[in-house]
Amino acid sequence: MSQLETYITENEQRFLEDLKGWLRIPSISTLPEHAKDVRQAAEYAVNQLQRIGFDATLIETKGHPLVYGEWLKAEGKPTLLIYGHYDVQPVDPIELWESPPFEPTIRNGNIYSRGASDDKGQTMLILKALETLMAVEGKLPLNVRVLIEGEEEAGGASIEHYVKFEHEKLKCDAVFICDTGMPSADIPALVAGLRGIIAAEIEVHGARRDLHSGVYGGVAPNPLHALSLIISRLKGEDGHINIPGLYDKLRPAPEVEKEFWRNDPLHLGESMLKEMGIKQFVGENNYPPLERVWARPTFEVHGIVGGFTGEGSKTVIPAVAKAKVSLRLPPDLKPDEVFELLQKAVKDVAPAGVDVTVHMGHGGDGLVVNPEAPIMQAAAEALKEVYGKEPIYTREGGSIPIAALFNSTLNVPVVLMGFALPDDNLHAPNEKYSIDQFFKGVRTVIRFLQNAGA
Amino acid sequence: MSQLETYITENEQRFLEDLKGWLRIPSISTLPEHAKDVRQAAEYAVNQLQRIGFDATLIETKGHPLVYGEWLKAEGKPTLLIYGHYDVQPVDPIELWESPPFEPTIRNGNIYSRGASDDKGQTMLILKALETLMAVEGKLPLNVRVLIEGEEEAGGASIEHYVKFEHEKLKCDAVFICDTGMPSADIPALVAGLRGIIAAEIEVHGARRDLHSGVYGGVAPNPLHALSLIISRLKGEDGHINIPGLYDKLRPAPEVEKEFWRNDPLHLGESMLKEMGIKQFVGENNYPPLERVWARPTFEVHGIVGGFTGEGSKTVIPAVAKAKVSLRLPPDLKPDEVFELLQKAVKDVAPAGVDVTVHMGHGGDGLVVNPEAPIMQAAAEALKEVYGKEPIYTREGGSIPIAALFNSTLNVPVVLMGFALPDDNLHAPNEKYSIDQFFKGVRTVIRFLQNAGA
Repeated sequence: MSQLETYITENEQRFLEDLKGWLRIPSISTLPEHAKDVRQAAEYAVNQLQRIGFDATLIETKGHPLVYGEWLKAEGKPTLLIYGHYDVQPVDPIELWESPPFEPTIRNGNIYSRGASDDKGQTMLILKALETLMAVEGKLPLNVRVLIEGEEEAGGASIEHYVKFEHEKLKCDAVFICDTGMPSADIPALVAGLRGIIAAEIEVHGARRDLHSGVYGGVAPNPLHALSLIISRLKGEDGHINIPGLYDKLRPAPEVEKEFWRNDPLHLGESMLKEMGIKQFVGENNYPPLERVWARPTFEVHGIVGGFTGEGSKTVIPAVAKAKVSLRLPPDLKPDEVFELLQKAVKDVAPAGVDVTVHMGHGGDGLVVNPEAPIMQAAAEALKEVYGKEPIYTREGGSIPIAALFNSTLNVPVVLMGFALPDDNLHAPNEKYSIDQFFKGVRTVIRFLQNAGA
Repeated sequence: MSQLETYITENEQRFLEDLKGWLRIPSISTLPEHAKDVRQAAEYAVNQLQRIGFDATLIETKGHPLVYGEWLKAEGKPTLLIYGHYDVQPVDPIELWESPPFEPTIRNGNIYSRGASDDKGQTMLILKALETLMAVEGKLPLNVRVLIEGEEEAGGASIEHYVKFEHEKLKCDAVFICDTGMPSADIPALVAGLRGIIAAEIEVHGARRDLHSGVYGGVAPNPLHALSLIISRLKGEDGHINIPGLYDKLRPAPEVEKEFWRNDPLHLGESMLKEMGIKQFVGENNYPPLERVWARPTFEVHGIVGGFTGEGSKTVIPAVAKAKVSLRLPPDLKPDEVFELLQKAVKDVAPAGVDVTVHMGHGGDGLVVNPEAPIMQAAAEALKEVYGKEPIYTREGGSIPIAALFNSTLNVPVVLMGFALPDDNLHAPNEKYSIDQFFKGVRTVIRFLQNAGA
């Protein structure tokens, strides 16, 4: 390892500069005006792969391009498919960023930028692990395919299509995804389960035009009020989701996991409270907090559109209002089935006098991973070597639909090993990535590849 | 009247051009970027008054200027104070306008523009009545003061201050406000009562930063969900407002009005349904629709701010969310008292785990007017002469706080006579004013001034 160590140390600054260059590209996949930036971020990744010595190219799609690279010269060795994404979340509310989201800035050992953690930082550390091995040893310990998408924050339709219809081109023995985190900087973790998701929009129509609340207030349907009624009926203060049938297919978790959730030996609950800056958890207080974020379905409202939301006031009763909502789903709950249940529940609880429709947004299955698989052992061993302790097996509340798809389509185990920290401000202002975690990540991935190819 | 008639007919096109010129100025008082336009609209009015032969000037305030003009040469005659406003509502959603809001366009006998009805059209017809009398007769049948404000859609703080502290300068025997409507083009109306208003903002804080709903969903407070709970608890599907004490001070209306509301001989309810394009009224179904829009308190949500409302999706749990709300208040309910009740009720119904504050926006008293006052008789007579039938006495659901203030400060009757129609799209896209109503308005106001000065 010493030559590899030397290479990492000598190239530390350049590794960070390569990451910064990528972070400067505002590749927000949901905003049409950033389409060019998204493509530029893809080309940046192709260029990185080519410089390492990979055959790499863009794969065009109906949406943003996929980045594909391969190095398949390790005869007789297994093949690992590595996944990452180069697109990022929108940045609003922009005024809360302490440094501009696309000017990566280093403060207190962290690099601040949209995408620093999710997922450019975590993808770049893999590229740097590959580069180090190729530069020092002239080869990799196993065959590697790299697939980096640009629609992870926008539903991932293109990669879904590609994996479903072109999976022959992705043949492998295991998949490695670096888009998850650790409970703290000294507790390495592997993910044993992921929640799925469906995003949906509830659209409510009242009168045929916006109305003056002085003239019509008292007899007019108010879609914003109707949405409040619908949302409060779908989920009460107790956090229970009133969608008939939702909980029916939920299987009980293994007793060993339930025990971990109940006892929370690592005090992860306390860390979450601290991170949120609040004194009490909200929601289903009859379940342990860890079970609620890892293994229970949730229903959240993300935004309500309609009426007047500018400065000042305008006492209008809007004709139309929409709520952007999502449900996080334990692996037992399938997005399509849950959407049907949601749709029916919304219609059932909608107040009289308004028309309601529910639109399906993106959806993704959850996943359960077996910690006993040899590839998971190779990852656990690598984490132990770098962090000095055995990893814990957590679940992750956030959904990575592609993980479930790889698992079901390629029929191989999926290793979810990531280095993000709870205070990385994912999807929020001031997203950051720990520089120490970045380099520990490089070292862990090198060992993981070595273990997996041994 | 024939010379007056001739003048009106000969100047018809110019009257409309003068109105269009005013409408082209986007005097949106709530948007700081339109401050210059607001001033320009004020100057336009000063110029109009001066051309008629009035002494006219801008009165500077802390906000937008007041327009003041006077003609006080009718010795021994009473003095009428005429009020109007030159500011307009915002125009969003702009995409629903069939012609640009500040390019006045004539279609089917209507002039379409923001402010066409509320209140530039209605104020301009008074100026044209004054012009006609001055041009033809060289004088007015009574003394006239004109006061036109620029903050009617923005809380009206400046005129409130002026009327409270400078009312010596506004001495008069009656006030005339042309900012109301008629139930249909052939049913003239005078307003016997107005609802007051308070606007408020309910602000909910959850975690100290925006959160990823995958990571924290299930244990995190969601201010948007909390707002839905609060709003649905403040007003249920039955339209009853759950603010303890709100209904306590509500006095029963006179039996004659109650009978009108119950019987609705003019089928105003049907017209409202048609206007709204819906099949059933929403709200307190145990009260007649007319009572609900004219004499019952209402609670409405006008917009909900927070989270992600752009295109695409972002599954964020926002740290903060706000609801813009208002209550319409029958004359018995005072804004300051109701705000206290609202504030307490919000705190009482807020769910656990969030911090809630309520901010008071603008407020205004309601008003009851006595139809027996001689000045009201002069108005009723004018309407009968032009429309060929006795006016009905309605209440108006929309609030005109300044009417209540004139009444209480100057201690004179307030005539609310307007010519807007229910389909004028006040505060909504495609606001318009009937050109026929505009000219009937000119003729009615001429007769009203003659009757009042006789």
